Amino acid sequence: MPANLDILITNDDGYTSKGIAELVSCMRQFGRITVVAPKYPQSGMSVALTLGRKAIAYRKVREGNGVSWSYVDGTPASCVKFALDQIYPDRKCDVVVCGINHGSNASVATNYSGTMGAAEEAAINGIPAIGVSLCDYSDDADFSKVTGAFPGIFMDLMEHVRPGSGICYNVNFPSAAVPLRGVRICHEGLGYWTRELDPWDLDEIPGGKEEGESLYVMRGRFVDCAPAGDRSADHHALEDGYISITPQTFDRTDRAEELRLSALMDKDF
Amino acid sequence: MPANLDILITNDDGYTSKGIAELVSCMRQFGRITVVAPKYPQSGMSVALTLGRKAIAYRKVREGNGVSWSYVDGTPASCVKFALDQIYPDRKCDVVVCGINHGSNASVATNYSGTMGAAEEAAINGIPAIGVSLCDYSDDADFSKVTGAFPGIFMDLMEHVRPGSGICYNVNFPSAAVPLRGVRICHEGLGYWTRELDPWDLDEIPGGKEEGESLYVMRGRFVDCAPAGDRSADHHALEDGYISITPQTFDRTDRAEELRLSALMDKDF
Repeated sequence: MPANLDILITNDDGYTSKGIAELVSCMRQFGRITVVAPKYPQSGMSVALTLGRKAIAYRKVREGNGVSWSYVDGTPASCVKFALDQIYPDRKCDVVVCGINHGSNASVATNYSGTMGAAEEAAINGIPAIGVSLCDYSDDADFSKVTGAFPGIFMDLMEHVRPGSGICYNVNFPSAAVPLRGVRICHEGLGYWTRELDPWDLDEIPGGKEEGESLYVMRGRFVDCAPAGDRSADHHALEDGYISITPQTFDRTDRAEELRLSALMDKDF
Repeated sequence: MPANLDILITNDDGYTSKGIAELVSCMRQFGRITVVAPKYPQSGMSVALTLGRKAIAYRKVREGNGVSWSYVDGTPASCVKFALDQIYPDRKCDVVVCGINHGSNASVATNYSGTMGAAEEAAINGIPAIGVSLCDYSDDADFSKVTGAFPGIFMDLMEHVRPGSGICYNVNFPSAAVPLRGVRICHEGLGYWTRELDPWDLDEIPGGKEEGESLYVMRGRFVDCAPAGDRSADHHALEDGYISITPQTFDRTDRAEELRLSALMDKDF
């Protein structure tokens, strides 16, 4: 690993969150830090882009001690696009690190996560990326176990990563209350959320409503579909007290299904 | 394939777009249609969810002739969640069909697409899903080749799909000007966008800006990274005049990387 990396840091909780400040502190030892993070919270934004609906506002907030802080009024993936397009020469930095996310991004949470969406955007651009999350949603979460163990994990991943491979890593830490038992390379655990939308009867509705509309609010209950014996499902590894690391690809293709179907459906008119 | 399917239709261009009306017309022959589509355009929203930022407004717009039309003021994936949670008993319909999208969702466009995000949400819930797109971004695009050929493709996919397999299909049609040469089962073609953000100097800024902010607008140029000989890359198949069908999985795991890294990094403290 080079001695002085160019490190882009972003998140989905916004540039003022505690998690991103803790991440910057523990990454500073590895090189120059450029923070380009969302102006407002962007949880659940996946790889969404801030498109033509509005102009994208950017502001450099402060700079010093090898750390530059900026915000973009857009999604996490748009923050990565902005940094690659406007800040780094030749669209390249050494690594993009996203987080520390307030809350788990294990199982299908990774599909919805803005933090992992930013990591995926980096992977699409051929840049190694690591998302790091703590299983604690509180604004004032205790990140001490992350800041203690993540630098070692970061060095291991940077040693083993294959450059330009389009892979990103989804690292999740059990909450501070759980004794850490080790590190597990995992896969995305099967699961989904159910009973998600409840009627919302309050009068004080942000944004109001139009004639004929009913209002709902999203509340989830996670349904675990991974086999009980599958302890490498990332959400199970976390239950067992392990730090989970799931390697992810941005390529959505199901290659086995591509092979199977091409024999059945390819045709020329 | 059962004679009378329960079909959920959504999109990312909004419930009043031409593409969704054309899709409803050509799917009506297969069963009961429930449209739950976004109130406003949601292009580029990926699998984003409409979370705690605001209550979600729902309205049934009209019903008749076996078609029910509703909107949800949220993302495409939220529309699917709403329909499964509030409309279908036991959270199940037979298939979710998304589109017809105004514009290609081939190559990495699928990662950003709200239309394919809705299909992925269905796949997460174990429901077969098909996204269908036309390589024409205009509001008044000519969808006649899609409505002509898609019903046959739909029947083929429903015959071959493995229920509960968590797969969705990304179907793209060349624009109406291109003579159709056939159907190709494809994979997500490699590529990315570059030079994406231009400074925006206009005075009339929707939303205005705050002190110290600069404004940008996103404009893309697609860079094709797929080998020229790879004609099963979906964006190449489209160039060649084929309807591309890419089977997608919602599982982000890179299984080869999981195997490789677990030998290097698994450890107990």
